[in-house]
Amino acid sequence: MTEKMTKYLDFMRELEKLKTVTRMNRTLDPGRQENSAEHSWHTSIIALLMQGYLPPNTDISKVVKMILIHDIVEIDTGDTYLYDEEKRKQAKHKEAIAAQRLFGLLPEPHNKEFLNLWNEFEAKETLEAKAASVLDALQPLINHDVTGKGNPRGMTRTMITEKKIFIRDVSPELWELAEQLIENAVIKGLCSNE
Amino acid sequence: MTEKMTKYLDFMRELEKLKTVTRMNRTLDPGRQENSAEHSWHTSIIALLMQGYLPPNTDISKVVKMILIHDIVEIDTGDTYLYDEEKRKQAKHKEAIAAQRLFGLLPEPHNKEFLNLWNEFEAKETLEAKAASVLDALQPLINHDVTGKGNPRGMTRTMITEKKIFIRDVSPELWELAEQLIENAVIKGLCSNE
Repeated sequence: MTEKMTKYLDFMRELEKLKTVTRMNRTLDPGRQENSAEHSWHTSIIALLMQGYLPPNTDISKVVKMILIHDIVEIDTGDTYLYDEEKRKQAKHKEAIAAQRLFGLLPEPHNKEFLNLWNEFEAKETLEAKAASVLDALQPLINHDVTGKGNPRGMTRTMITEKKIFIRDVSPELWELAEQLIENAVIKGLCSNE
Repeated sequence: MTEKMTKYLDFMRELEKLKTVTRMNRTLDPGRQENSAEHSWHTSIIALLMQGYLPPNTDISKVVKMILIHDIVEIDTGDTYLYDEEKRKQAKHKEAIAAQRLFGLLPEPHNKEFLNLWNEFEAKETLEAKAASVLDALQPLINHDVTGKGNPRGMTRTMITEKKIFIRDVSPELWELAEQLIENAVIKGLCSNE
């Protein structure tokens, strides 16, 4: 095997670990938390389907690629809970180091390509990064709606709305969907109506 | 919400179920089997990385799309073990019915698009379907190499090679990688050397 292929294999082996990184969300398996690998898969297909509700000229293949790789850094850092502001600040720095290590396993050109793509996602400035962030924020609302389980801490409608309102700036239709799912969450008692 | 969006939501909710469809493969979580959602995620990134080893003119975005949706039918049928020939024959018919039901939840044009894409994958005739099949066959070899756990039944080198040899017709480099991983499996005692 070539040295290049050996590097690819190291990285493809490393990916296995993301299946052990659990999120706060649940699955339909009683007691089993969702992991970042299956979250990324779910969000990727949501991207393919919601393409028509994203701004024109959004490169959907790039959005899917971004979603597929956006959580790989969690192999080193673990998932950081959306509503834990303090931890999220600290996580930024750790995730940047993780991106260097993990994407650094890859040979060129994929090393730089994946690192750039991840940095672009994090910066949330381009059409594709904004779209990927919106879809990443939408998937947990769908997950909660299906599993009937929300976040374990005392969550309110206002707290969720504050975190998700940025969806409206990217897509009014996806914001309408998000609002419906938040309304469902209140009705199902997954969060309070405050 | 429009009727169209309601259909999309029904399908996106349905996807949650694939996270409960377990495969024969293991994960790094002691005792937990891999599910078809995380398998699809892993295989999609392998596709992005192995693009350079696929035949020229292979549309990689289409390959990724195909991989993302290829196991959705298992929501209705469950996963069918690669080495269970009898069950695999029966599964073909059941999977076709599942594809009609599941992709039928989607509004146009995604209903037909996803059904056609899945049928194309199953037929294994186009460049993209062949590539997706090769990557789908490669991912378990990487999974076994990392988890140190192969298939539970009395597996031999010959049985594995027979199932994977089609990789050679699509990509000599990926076949070389597969051969190395099969060699590793023999060394690690995941299958016999027969």
